[in-house]
Amino acid sequence: MRVGGQHFRTIWLADDGWRVCIIDQRYLPHQWVVAQLEQVQHAVDAIRDMQVRGAPLIGATAAYGLCLALHHDASDNSLRNACAQLKAARPTAVNLAWAVDRLSAQLSTFPADDRCERAYALAAGLCDDDVRTNRALGEQGLSLIARHAARLPEGRAINILTHCNAGWLATVDWGTALAPIFLAHRAGIKMHVWVDETRPRNQGALTAWELEQQSIAHTYIVDNAGGHLMQRGLVDLCITGTDRVTRNGDVCNKIGTYLKALAARDNSIPFYVALPSSTIDWQLGNGLDDVPIETRGDEEVTRVRGLDHDGKLSDICVTGRAVPVRNDAFDVTPARLITAFITERGVCAASEAGLRSLFPETVAVPA
Amino acid sequence: MRVGGQHFRTIWLADDGWRVCIIDQRYLPHQWVVAQLEQVQHAVDAIRDMQVRGAPLIGATAAYGLCLALHHDASDNSLRNACAQLKAARPTAVNLAWAVDRLSAQLSTFPADDRCERAYALAAGLCDDDVRTNRALGEQGLSLIARHAARLPEGRAINILTHCNAGWLATVDWGTALAPIFLAHRAGIKMHVWVDETRPRNQGALTAWELEQQSIAHTYIVDNAGGHLMQRGLVDLCITGTDRVTRNGDVCNKIGTYLKALAARDNSIPFYVALPSSTIDWQLGNGLDDVPIETRGDEEVTRVRGLDHDGKLSDICVTGRAVPVRNDAFDVTPARLITAFITERGVCAASEAGLRSLFPETVAVPA
Repeated sequence: MRVGGQHFRTIWLADDGWRVCIIDQRYLPHQWVVAQLEQVQHAVDAIRDMQVRGAPLIGATAAYGLCLALHHDASDNSLRNACAQLKAARPTAVNLAWAVDRLSAQLSTFPADDRCERAYALAAGLCDDDVRTNRALGEQGLSLIARHAARLPEGRAINILTHCNAGWLATVDWGTALAPIFLAHRAGIKMHVWVDETRPRNQGALTAWELEQQSIAHTYIVDNAGGHLMQRGLVDLCITGTDRVTRNGDVCNKIGTYLKALAARDNSIPFYVALPSSTIDWQLGNGLDDVPIETRGDEEVTRVRGLDHDGKLSDICVTGRAVPVRNDAFDVTPARLITAFITERGVCAASEAGLRSLFPETVAVPA
Repeated sequence: MRVGGQHFRTIWLADDGWRVCIIDQRYLPHQWVVAQLEQVQHAVDAIRDMQVRGAPLIGATAAYGLCLALHHDASDNSLRNACAQLKAARPTAVNLAWAVDRLSAQLSTFPADDRCERAYALAAGLCDDDVRTNRALGEQGLSLIARHAARLPEGRAINILTHCNAGWLATVDWGTALAPIFLAHRAGIKMHVWVDETRPRNQGALTAWELEQQSIAHTYIVDNAGGHLMQRGLVDLCITGTDRVTRNGDVCNKIGTYLKALAARDNSIPFYVALPSSTIDWQLGNGLDDVPIETRGDEEVTRVRGLDHDGKLSDICVTGRAVPVRNDAFDVTPARLITAFITERGVCAASEAGLRSLFPETVAVPA
């Protein structure tokens, strides 16, 4: 997407052809900082410390992390170690293990001499696939938004609520939940987006920044507000992304998604989840029992980052110093609360039957 | 309640017998600041700028605001103006208008010479009533907590979730939602409290501070987390306060309460609302249609206050500078989602019949 008139992806190669550039998202929306990764450990750190976040971008960064490892040492041992390091960086997003396993399976079949070049080609391919896939699911979501918008009184903007950031910053480009919104905007559909702040890390500020860059009308709200707005008829539909979908259609996504899905149900508002098929975990049959939920540090909750009076980026402590904290990063929204999935192949029910109808090539997994 | 070993109420008279002292809650939990009010305008500002907050304490502050007005000028005109000013300070909490109307009706029957002294006596009485009422509803809530705790396995703490601050800081003393918790702790019931942060103003930090002062186990969580914890069996019951209850049992309370009530219902967890009867608005029959919802400034959402690296209280901007914001301070939880009300006269169903069973003296209001 364009930032200040220039086109960017979230991850790209430096001019030297091997270093990996990322946007350090910890500084957005306040500062635009590009970081260069030179070793697999840098990629691990970037994922763990959330310089990059969003399931698809985590997968792409892991893929390039393998490249960096092989750039320095293309041995079996180096490949094996890099895979283990990267997969341990964060537990919840399935795209991480998916990308690492897919690439390493292919790379291990090549002689060490060839591996580095192959790895860069595969990582580039994975990134291109991500862009294509998100664009495709964006088109599917655009049709869906257009159908909802057509039912509104003439001239009334369609109000869409989203949680966390599932925009282009969460992917290589286009985003998942926001891809339909970007495309609908280009198609001339009048829209307004309610942007959940998304504590503790305020990824809503990233979403607001993305929407502002594309001149899409939006309003930033605290996470507590969505239910109230739905009760008042101010939300027409919800779209979120997801970090992992189990084969029965349960959705693991940023903490708080479940609460918004409950409110949507209580107010008969459609709740859609947009996902590339790489986010489906066909191995898992039940989100609540099976998806590992990452617990992150207390300081994400007790400390907040922002610009101080002098315009300097600064951290402050918002609680008493010794307050005990629990900080689970994700929750699971049961399939029963989801109106439909938006995927690159079409829209389907949030169920195993729905997912298999679009992805029939997936082998059956015993329950 | 005790702070650092000394007993405090949230509002009291200065040694001169007429100035009014309050705890400036905008500085808590970071700093203990006592402010003195000398004019009715100071009381209006304290309510509007949330130096004091919580429906019962707003009522008490308004009562003393009348005293301050009459201290300087005890005329009919002064009384009338003070009432108008105070009632306009914040729109949602019913206790504000209730306290002002009750006192002014009584005061207007006295000659101007007498009014000031009478006003201070009435305000003191109102404060004492608030303390007594909250203590009584605390006892009712204690029985309820004890009953729930008795069903748990031996030695397991009962997990209670609360939203916003409905502790002693929100009242003259004891609190509403926290009064049962304070008393249950004194009664030796093993408890743990999940404290919702409560964006945008983080009143959860006040609740955590209150609980810490009383050595009650607690954990601070973002507002997004409660549903997830309920799904995992980590919440046994919820108790919140309220700013206004309509006669049919709808609960207007801090924004986000509705989302927690939905999650409690989805997970079969009891959801209680604790209220002194002064919070019941017998005039209103439907919360969603009838309760005015206060919209507050954007800066409550975009700016966050806390301690910087040097331990200095500092405000930072957490969003892009120009982000559009909507900041509704309250939402309405429909009566159907509430297990029961905890009042000073007992526990009752969240319905007109339930409320009337405890408060039969209330005159019928035509629908």
